[in-house]
Amino acid sequence: MSTLVSTPLADLLLARLSRDAAQPLQRQLYAAIRQAILDGVLVAGQRLPSTRALASELQLSRITVTLAFDQLQAEGYLQARHGSGTFVGHSLPSSRQVPPPATASVPPQTMLSQRAGQLLARPKTMLAPAGAFVPGVADTRHFPFAIWQRLQNRRGKQDAALLSGYDTSGGYAPLRRVLADYLQVSRAVRCHPDQILITTGTRQSLDLCARMLADAGDRALVEEPCNTSSRLVWQAAGLVVDGVPVDQEGICCDQMAVSGHPAPKLVLTTPAHQYPLGIPMSLPRRHQLLAYARAQGVWIVEDDYDSEFRYDSKPLPALQGLDDHERVIYLGTFSKVMYPGLRLSYLVVPSSLAPAFRVALTQLYRPGQLVLQAALADFIDAGYFATHIRRMRGIYAERQQVLRQALQQHFGPEFVLSGGHAGLHLTLQWQHPLDADGWAVRAAAQGLSLRLLSYYRQQAQDGNGLVLGYGAVATEDITDSVRLMRDVCDA
Amino acid sequence: MSTLVSTPLADLLLARLSRDAAQPLQRQLYAAIRQAILDGVLVAGQRLPSTRALASELQLSRITVTLAFDQLQAEGYLQARHGSGTFVGHSLPSSRQVPPPATASVPPQTMLSQRAGQLLARPKTMLAPAGAFVPGVADTRHFPFAIWQRLQNRRGKQDAALLSGYDTSGGYAPLRRVLADYLQVSRAVRCHPDQILITTGTRQSLDLCARMLADAGDRALVEEPCNTSSRLVWQAAGLVVDGVPVDQEGICCDQMAVSGHPAPKLVLTTPAHQYPLGIPMSLPRRHQLLAYARAQGVWIVEDDYDSEFRYDSKPLPALQGLDDHERVIYLGTFSKVMYPGLRLSYLVVPSSLAPAFRVALTQLYRPGQLVLQAALADFIDAGYFATHIRRMRGIYAERQQVLRQALQQHFGPEFVLSGGHAGLHLTLQWQHPLDADGWAVRAAAQGLSLRLLSYYRQQAQDGNGLVLGYGAVATEDITDSVRLMRDVCDA
Repeated sequence: MSTLVSTPLADLLLARLSRDAAQPLQRQLYAAIRQAILDGVLVAGQRLPSTRALASELQLSRITVTLAFDQLQAEGYLQARHGSGTFVGHSLPSSRQVPPPATASVPPQTMLSQRAGQLLARPKTMLAPAGAFVPGVADTRHFPFAIWQRLQNRRGKQDAALLSGYDTSGGYAPLRRVLADYLQVSRAVRCHPDQILITTGTRQSLDLCARMLADAGDRALVEEPCNTSSRLVWQAAGLVVDGVPVDQEGICCDQMAVSGHPAPKLVLTTPAHQYPLGIPMSLPRRHQLLAYARAQGVWIVEDDYDSEFRYDSKPLPALQGLDDHERVIYLGTFSKVMYPGLRLSYLVVPSSLAPAFRVALTQLYRPGQLVLQAALADFIDAGYFATHIRRMRGIYAERQQVLRQALQQHFGPEFVLSGGHAGLHLTLQWQHPLDADGWAVRAAAQGLSLRLLSYYRQQAQDGNGLVLGYGAVATEDITDSVRLMRDVCDA
Repeated sequence: MSTLVSTPLADLLLARLSRDAAQPLQRQLYAAIRQAILDGVLVAGQRLPSTRALASELQLSRITVTLAFDQLQAEGYLQARHGSGTFVGHSLPSSRQVPPPATASVPPQTMLSQRAGQLLARPKTMLAPAGAFVPGVADTRHFPFAIWQRLQNRRGKQDAALLSGYDTSGGYAPLRRVLADYLQVSRAVRCHPDQILITTGTRQSLDLCARMLADAGDRALVEEPCNTSSRLVWQAAGLVVDGVPVDQEGICCDQMAVSGHPAPKLVLTTPAHQYPLGIPMSLPRRHQLLAYARAQGVWIVEDDYDSEFRYDSKPLPALQGLDDHERVIYLGTFSKVMYPGLRLSYLVVPSSLAPAFRVALTQLYRPGQLVLQAALADFIDAGYFATHIRRMRGIYAERQQVLRQALQQHFGPEFVLSGGHAGLHLTLQWQHPLDADGWAVRAAAQGLSLRLLSYYRQQAQDGNGLVLGYGAVATEDITDSVRLMRDVCDA
């Protein structure tokens, strides 16, 4: 746009207009004037040129300027005074003048609840969101985003209005149907689609279980060590959460009853691949746990968080499939297979609980996002989901092997590596004295994220370890990262 | 596809293949065989034709058939036995054989927690999800889904990988920035973008407030009547929730202190447009409420649920903008302006609480959905959001007027109509004896949803009323619906 510009305002606006942009000029002008007001370039009470003058200066049609002015007026940015012109609106307290919150300051614990205090207790070493060796994060570089976007776009175009409402049925029915089929074949989970509830994440699944099956002050058990976030979610729901030790067969059922304590309402367990130790629960232990649950009337919550990625040929079926007495609630997630930000997970509840859980899901969280759920159903139904799992299974298996070899090469026999039949991480444990916190801090300075095993424990214990995720680190970077990790350890 | 078909299986598969479909034939064949197995047409142990034979029968290339078989084998649907062919897999317990949960049965209350019991207490009359006169639902028929889908698609294509992760910053930063500007201009809310947290709905916003600012057993106040769902969410978070009466100026501040009860931690209020009575809180009452909050150290949660739709020229600014002592948490939602299933809402917290709330949001709910948040930022920034609000404001204002006139015509002076400066509903109240439940049941049989005012009350009260939503009913249907409602009343 070349023109003879007569005012600084026109100058400024011209710089923000482009005839080549996809956006109509009217909208560009609207945005440019609004920005000038928000930035304080135009101040309250200031008079604007007439639409005729501005149109001429900007070489726009007068109707373009008038439409932009109309919208700005309707939103309060401009005010027209009859006979005297258009002015920047008063009573526009600029948000730019509000200072940012002091993020560095200590949170005002005295203002907060006790459970907030539990939530805010942070691990000593902060982790980067990706890279070597953040645990629990899948690699999205290989995800077929183009296909996924196409499926979403198709549903968003064809069925937008149809899928724009709330959902009161526990999730999009065709998604629950394909998921029931998938779980049956892949995990030997036995369920009718109406036993499945789609949630916005495993935390929501856990929260729903806690609220439906336990009241504030009720006792619940988790594995020791366990996923810290899961424990926090149950504590925030008012539960008193105790840890139960894990041995080589899984959670120690005979240590669940503690004299003086009431029987727990809920037990959270990770039978496929104990989190974070990686141990699969033995078949005898599974039967023992189910018998305990049945005898005590306890609910077992089975978190099958990453079982899609298993590298042995004969995985044990899900605990849910062994349960003949409706004591197991099965949790799964799409975050590990698809991508973290998707926010779609699910739970499979016993038939007797399904109607109540469906009502509560609606009342507590008011679910929606049906376009996304429909696209996911299409993605699974067309086989893309299974193809992607198969592909990633190969990639992760290779990464695990490379990581295992590098660790064995650089760390002596005093460091013990976990088994590797599944998942997205390995643990490296030691019993000898070692300044683990210092190691993690020095590693962070080198761009390495080392998550300490002690982060996952409620009780202090001799020795320590690292939970090393290989999901989010490229195969070719693993060996160098392990070497760096070793160097930093010795520093 | 025309060919000489020699087996029933080939027949069946051919019927499901189309050379014109967008999906590759290999995927179509995979899906067709899988479906045949799931439907029980192919049974466990059954032998399939060789890939060569099937390719010939279906006039497909052999590689197409081989690839489909490979995938089915990898997923366990098929099993290859060396030298003897390919068979339908064993150990495929069909989910089709699992009976559906008995939805008609009473939920097993004895198995559930007490708070689950509170959640499951349902209103006596069930409402349809849309139509005359469901309250609290916006009309999506006028929403620019095509533009919205285009914006999502652009972000999903360009920035998919970038926006595929979890969010730990309280929401997509550019969305929080445009939202801060919007709230300042539209509602006189004064905040820095870092005081804003994006949530998946007002229920999540309320849940976060409850958990951060109160422990189980703490007292909280809501208006009487109020949005029942909000009360349920706080009860499910373990709070003891009491109702405070509402008069013509809003919530009665001098009835908040009850002797023998501790001071509340939280007060939930709807100053712009009391829900469901429709009364705006007077300026003196606002100052009284803020003074009370300051003196008692109480947090005020301001739910500004539908203030975008106001039809008077001079609305009062948000309570948040009047608060100089950081006692107000402001809640807003995009569901009423965009569409219900979007699941994006927000809260604005005092600067002192922002860092703690941000950490807790991440820990409790693990937010994501950044593509959606980025598209929404674009939608607001380009002015589409404001344009849509302006358009709907005109439509809803007309609907309210039509509804008001029809109600005045068909119902006598013993029925009192609420004021109509804002929102998506009117209330019709009466003091004389009237079988309201019977009316609602008869109306439901005619396809009319009548929500009783008593549904929103914790305490029984003389008289009753209806909360009539006009958001989800077409303007031209309103008068007939009111006539039908009157006929059903007299029946």
